[in-house]
Amino acid sequence: MASYEVMVEIRHLPGINDPEGATVERALPALGFSTISKVSMGKAIRFSIDADDVDSATLSVNDVCKRLLANPVLESFEIKIREIK
Amino acid sequence: MASYEVMVEIRHLPGINDPEGATVERALPALGFSTISKVSMGKAIRFSIDADDVDSATLSVNDVCKRLLANPVLESFEIKIREIK
Repeated sequence: MASYEVMVEIRHLPGINDPEGATVERALPALGFSTISKVSMGKAIRFSIDADDVDSATLSVNDVCKRLLANPVLESFEIKIREIK
Repeated sequence: MASYEVMVEIRHLPGINDPEGATVERALPALGFSTISKVSMGKAIRFSIDADDVDSATLSVNDVCKRLLANPVLESFEIKIREIK
């Protein structure tokens, strides 16, 4: 049994409204940041998982993303896994 | 002038309440994920920035994080910058 550190990034699918990102983008010019564009606001979820190997950890994380963390109709997710030595 | 792709991860500072992460953690055992722990819910913000070089891009992104994206009293942030060729 090994421990893994997981980072899941959840993003809006292309074409899905991102009001938080749009609000940030609208606020930027007034603060003097006129060179920033395409703001997109997602979630960064970090957790630890115990698993036999990296493959079974990845499988579990995929499953938990689909069932709990992300809404696959509106969001995509990207997983990064690193073993904790 | 070059374009850079930026990813900012915003996390709660240690000791700051994270109710969303705690809720996810409480929901996991009922879904059969009993090996997941230390869930922490942060923000993942992506955007593009135009700047003369990577140093001035990093400076601007740091500034925008402090002034708009993160609340330094409650949150820490981590910046990743990559040039778009």
